[in-house]
Amino acid sequence: MTSFPTVPRPSAAASMDDVARAAGVSTATVSRALRGLSSVSAATRDRIQGVARDLGYVASPSAASLASGRTRSIGLLTPWVDRWFYARAIDGAERALREVGFDALLYTFDLSSDQSRPRVDPSVLRRRVDGVLVVGMPLSREEVASLEALDLPLAFVGTGRHEHVTVRLDDDAAGRCATEHLLGLGHRRIGHITGPAGVEHSWSPPVARHAAWRVALEEASVAAEPGWAVDGAFDVNGGREAAHRLLETHPEITALFAASDEMAMGAILAARERGIDVPGELSVIGIDGHDLGELVGLTTVAQDPARQGGEAAQLLLSDIALWAVPGSEKVSGALQVLHPTHLVVRSSTAPPRQT
Amino acid sequence: MTSFPTVPRPSAAASMDDVARAAGVSTATVSRALRGLSSVSAATRDRIQGVARDLGYVASPSAASLASGRTRSIGLLTPWVDRWFYARAIDGAERALREVGFDALLYTFDLSSDQSRPRVDPSVLRRRVDGVLVVGMPLSREEVASLEALDLPLAFVGTGRHEHVTVRLDDDAAGRCATEHLLGLGHRRIGHITGPAGVEHSWSPPVARHAAWRVALEEASVAAEPGWAVDGAFDVNGGREAAHRLLETHPEITALFAASDEMAMGAILAARERGIDVPGELSVIGIDGHDLGELVGLTTVAQDPARQGGEAAQLLLSDIALWAVPGSEKVSGALQVLHPTHLVVRSSTAPPRQT
Repeated sequence: MTSFPTVPRPSAAASMDDVARAAGVSTATVSRALRGLSSVSAATRDRIQGVARDLGYVASPSAASLASGRTRSIGLLTPWVDRWFYARAIDGAERALREVGFDALLYTFDLSSDQSRPRVDPSVLRRRVDGVLVVGMPLSREEVASLEALDLPLAFVGTGRHEHVTVRLDDDAAGRCATEHLLGLGHRRIGHITGPAGVEHSWSPPVARHAAWRVALEEASVAAEPGWAVDGAFDVNGGREAAHRLLETHPEITALFAASDEMAMGAILAARERGIDVPGELSVIGIDGHDLGELVGLTTVAQDPARQGGEAAQLLLSDIALWAVPGSEKVSGALQVLHPTHLVVRSSTAPPRQT
Repeated sequence: MTSFPTVPRPSAAASMDDVARAAGVSTATVSRALRGLSSVSAATRDRIQGVARDLGYVASPSAASLASGRTRSIGLLTPWVDRWFYARAIDGAERALREVGFDALLYTFDLSSDQSRPRVDPSVLRRRVDGVLVVGMPLSREEVASLEALDLPLAFVGTGRHEHVTVRLDDDAAGRCATEHLLGLGHRRIGHITGPAGVEHSWSPPVARHAAWRVALEEASVAAEPGWAVDGAFDVNGGREAAHRLLETHPEITALFAASDEMAMGAILAARERGIDVPGELSVIGIDGHDLGELVGLTTVAQDPARQGGEAAQLLLSDIALWAVPGSEKVSGALQVLHPTHLVVRSSTAPPRQT
């Protein structure tokens, strides 16, 4: 992961031209450098990244530079419109597109359907869109390859591969933050509710958060039992069922880190159904900053999906503008933008009860 | 409201041709009758509606009959992607469109922005879509007129005017159900948290639910004070602030009916902040059936927005197919499909405490 360039979330509005001027290079070189393409030397890349950071560069193409787009539409691929992260990321992306007069064509795919056939058929996108934005959707290698074969700019939000433009939260830091909060309260027997990793995915948000939990426990010299981590399917009912299984088989657990707030809220429901007091007998922490977390006093590691969606849309628009420049490299290189998270402590976590 | 035709939500799959055959009329007549167009006599209309009901007719055009659509795209207008009702209605509509190979172009508009200029500019839709689906968005007369001027099939979900195709819950019945549940528990001083009615709207979900609350109180011989109804902006924080205002100025209130679950959950937060026990000192009921309502024990009048979205999309597709028939009337007549709701009693409502 560290072998790919990452940039902090920019906060102000400098243009790519500003960065090019300040760095004394062409705009195309700035784009290549920020995408980590090998045609730019490491020294130049480091210098340009520093300038971009100093100027607070945000990829934000002008409407004029986008005029060459043939369709002025983006294909927006997502497995769900109606889950917390997805709805907010889509909203953020759509508003960013709208500002420059681009349409979002929404394509949903049912992840729970037959896994043996490709869920993404890119042929529907051909000649209909200028670029593709994938929101929080784990795709197989074949599906990603078929999207790449469209020969269109491609960006991901929430989840993606390192060779692409991806905007997401810092899953590693978020998973550590959640686990270390529980460790800091004095918990040792800390369970984890994760989500489906998908087939053949070496990296995804659930995989990264799961790994961060394991590493944080190891660093605290806690040997996690294999049964302490269960799959909660990333929704309320999945989290509830997972917590029931976990609390049934591992009653020694005193704290739970769920990889999403919806699963964490499901876990609180399960605890209530089992007569287990939260936080007296069980602490629960999630990741997200869900709007309704306050209502149940949920401690969480908060993120902002709308900003991630908006920024991914802007990076995609930037690529569309750049690809339209004669002689430009039609490559969307690796660019990982990691958004920070922050711990929100409420009443679902507390020190373990003295026994 | 009763002067417009309403049909119950159909549950099985008969085609418009089946209805036409069974009723001994043409398919176009079936469509006209179900839309209440004046070119069909009342007797014929009643007969066709009866046949459609008996057969469980669902508007569901075949892909073939839609092949004449020029763009195979629908413009999907909505103020919010990320609120509970909207996200689910959009998800349902998008999946129905996808089944027949139609794209959804998503257009969001910020309702909170400058109210002096039109928020919907239909010129972006021209030549890009075969029809327009408006999801839960209160539009001004001018905005509706500009949509009608596109000369495209038009349908609404959640909110709409009686002269259009609209799929929504039975707001009147839902508002009565909520209020009568509280009256049945013995409450008399029942407050109401409503939403913004919008400018110049004689009918909208908040207006209908507000009216149902008032009528139910009147029928129970309760004289509601004007201050018992407050605007909660249809989100969690709005509901919370509204409940604070209401409980501050009207401490005699023993129960609250909020026009949405998100506002009801905000009201529960406000009660907690004021040290008011729910349901001991204050009963709270909402409308929606929000996924997280169970977590806070929220009593609610539940609906299914995804089914409403899917059905509105199918009715729109049906109009698109029909308009493509040579000689057909290019009119989307009034068709109000009212979805039923059901009361879900949990722990946020109880009889008033004896004083």
